[in-house]
Amino acid sequence: MTNNNSVVITSTLMADLKEYLSSHQFSQIVVLTDSNTKEHCYPLVCDELPEHIEISIPAGEDHKHIHTCIGLWEKMTSHALDRKALMINLGGGVIGDMGGFAAAAYKRGITFINLPTTLLAQADASVGGKLGIDFQGFKNHIGFFKDPARIFIWPEFLKTLPPNELRSGFAEIIKHSLIGDKAHWDLLKTKSLEEQDMKLHTAHAVKFKQSVVEEDPYEMGLRKILNFGHTIGHAIESYYLDKGDKRLLHGEAIAIGMITETYLSKKLLGLSESALKEVADFILSIYGKVTLDKTTIPDFIQLTTQDKKNEGGQVLMTLLSELGKAEINCAVKGPDIAEAINYYIDLDDKS
Amino acid sequence: MTNNNSVVITSTLMADLKEYLSSHQFSQIVVLTDSNTKEHCYPLVCDELPEHIEISIPAGEDHKHIHTCIGLWEKMTSHALDRKALMINLGGGVIGDMGGFAAAAYKRGITFINLPTTLLAQADASVGGKLGIDFQGFKNHIGFFKDPARIFIWPEFLKTLPPNELRSGFAEIIKHSLIGDKAHWDLLKTKSLEEQDMKLHTAHAVKFKQSVVEEDPYEMGLRKILNFGHTIGHAIESYYLDKGDKRLLHGEAIAIGMITETYLSKKLLGLSESALKEVADFILSIYGKVTLDKTTIPDFIQLTTQDKKNEGGQVLMTLLSELGKAEINCAVKGPDIAEAINYYIDLDDKS
Repeated sequence: MTNNNSVVITSTLMADLKEYLSSHQFSQIVVLTDSNTKEHCYPLVCDELPEHIEISIPAGEDHKHIHTCIGLWEKMTSHALDRKALMINLGGGVIGDMGGFAAAAYKRGITFINLPTTLLAQADASVGGKLGIDFQGFKNHIGFFKDPARIFIWPEFLKTLPPNELRSGFAEIIKHSLIGDKAHWDLLKTKSLEEQDMKLHTAHAVKFKQSVVEEDPYEMGLRKILNFGHTIGHAIESYYLDKGDKRLLHGEAIAIGMITETYLSKKLLGLSESALKEVADFILSIYGKVTLDKTTIPDFIQLTTQDKKNEGGQVLMTLLSELGKAEINCAVKGPDIAEAINYYIDLDDKS
Repeated sequence: MTNNNSVVITSTLMADLKEYLSSHQFSQIVVLTDSNTKEHCYPLVCDELPEHIEISIPAGEDHKHIHTCIGLWEKMTSHALDRKALMINLGGGVIGDMGGFAAAAYKRGITFINLPTTLLAQADASVGGKLGIDFQGFKNHIGFFKDPARIFIWPEFLKTLPPNELRSGFAEIIKHSLIGDKAHWDLLKTKSLEEQDMKLHTAHAVKFKQSVVEEDPYEMGLRKILNFGHTIGHAIESYYLDKGDKRLLHGEAIAIGMITETYLSKKLLGLSESALKEVADFILSIYGKVTLDKTTIPDFIQLTTQDKKNEGGQVLMTLLSELGKAEINCAVKGPDIAEAINYYIDLDDKS
């Protein structure tokens, strides 16, 4: 799947993009934006691009569904795009996942490249070939694996982000260090969000993720370590998807997922008490506490039963055996999930 | 993609199926049927299958759309299928194409196997990994490539077919001989439909198609030869999709496509007049004449411009340089398409 050549971290985006386009013969070019990237990112690149069609969708995870995708296919059809057309996904995870899905299924697949504009997409979502949409409240329930032909990571785009989006993306950077690199975790945990070197972290996260994905592109085994924090995190994110003001950004939900799943790591894999405290303290210092209602815990547990990595009716999680080391396929029962969420709810707010 | 081991032509379906299922550990089994195969084919296999869920959709090409597919995903979700589940597609091309698409995109892909029940699906559609649905009247407009884990071809299913379905499937058998094997064409053309040895033809067609698909799984070049008869054929099929009684079975449309594209082969590639006559006579002897209205020719031409194999605004067809030999990427202009359809309209009915 992804090889090192297909991901380019660049300070000269326009030159790289021009070279890429001139070395391929695309019949038409579509730039897919959302309402945010149309306003803040598209103006940074549009004048330098050759003739193209711009298609924009409303911003946000609640538009990452099959009906938005159908609308995209309708627009692509109305422009009579052929199989030699190119789609440029200019945006965060939603644009990459859904734009990739729409492109990869249109006429059985046209070429698409990603210009990730959020920290989340730069450090995580663009790499690994996961495409898809949410369905009936389940995250990425419909989709498949296919890599963008190229990913251009341009740190300049991060300047367009509001602080909470930057913070959200940082959750995946924390995750990559917790599951795979204790030294990097030790580097992170001493600094505030403002002090972090995001370009360094992005390069580290991309390299780590690539090494995992290359070994297990279709998530048959090892790749599941990337799911640390995501079983409970996704459940909480899904639960709040339609709850208006209370909804969470992906990384905000994953932050809760990492604390609760570190608790389960202590309970089920014998992770030390001090490691749990270190993780919870640092994550709370960045994200603060989200107020969860104890009466909703059964709903969260129910949502974890639909996780894609489950097998044979068992909820399977990735947990930490120690800081910097993860184990996949840990079976976790409902009462333990409840206990972990209660642990989170009872923590003091450290922010 | 498809290798020889994954397609099994068998006279002992149930034993083969049992062996396959017992050598894999599926968490759940779904059998997908349509209203026809539910009535005529499912009873032949259901008692021998282990515990399973049966999902049925209405029969016919006009249900091969995204909304049927959404309904399938809803049912799969309501049964909480996990990624170790198996889908068995029991039916013709629609079930194989859409069931495969639904399975391959559900939770980024569960295993699916095909039990093709029509001649069309046995001789053609099951092999080659094309999955998908129609969209806005365009055939297979949304989809991608993925092979079934196994295809079990059981000729007994053909006994459940009405005669027009058998005849429809025979069109692909004619096509495979015209594009790749003059000796096989010479064998076919001397016999009526009733006299044909369908098991022999199916084995021939599957072997030929496999050899093409292995060389070019993603239709970058050679594989396009399989599209002979399908540019104009698909356009005519699409045009009549929503025309009630006038709608055509796939093979009936492809029969017209093969005659008109053989005419274009004469005009543009110098195929002999006698070869054209031979093809037109045989196909008409099997399929009779369909009454087309000359005023609809511009609509057919418009529909050919949306063909997936077109590039840079040109309509590209696969044509015959001689009987048994095809050339891909032949650019054809609208007036020539009109002339070919007029040729068909002016033929005498030989049936």
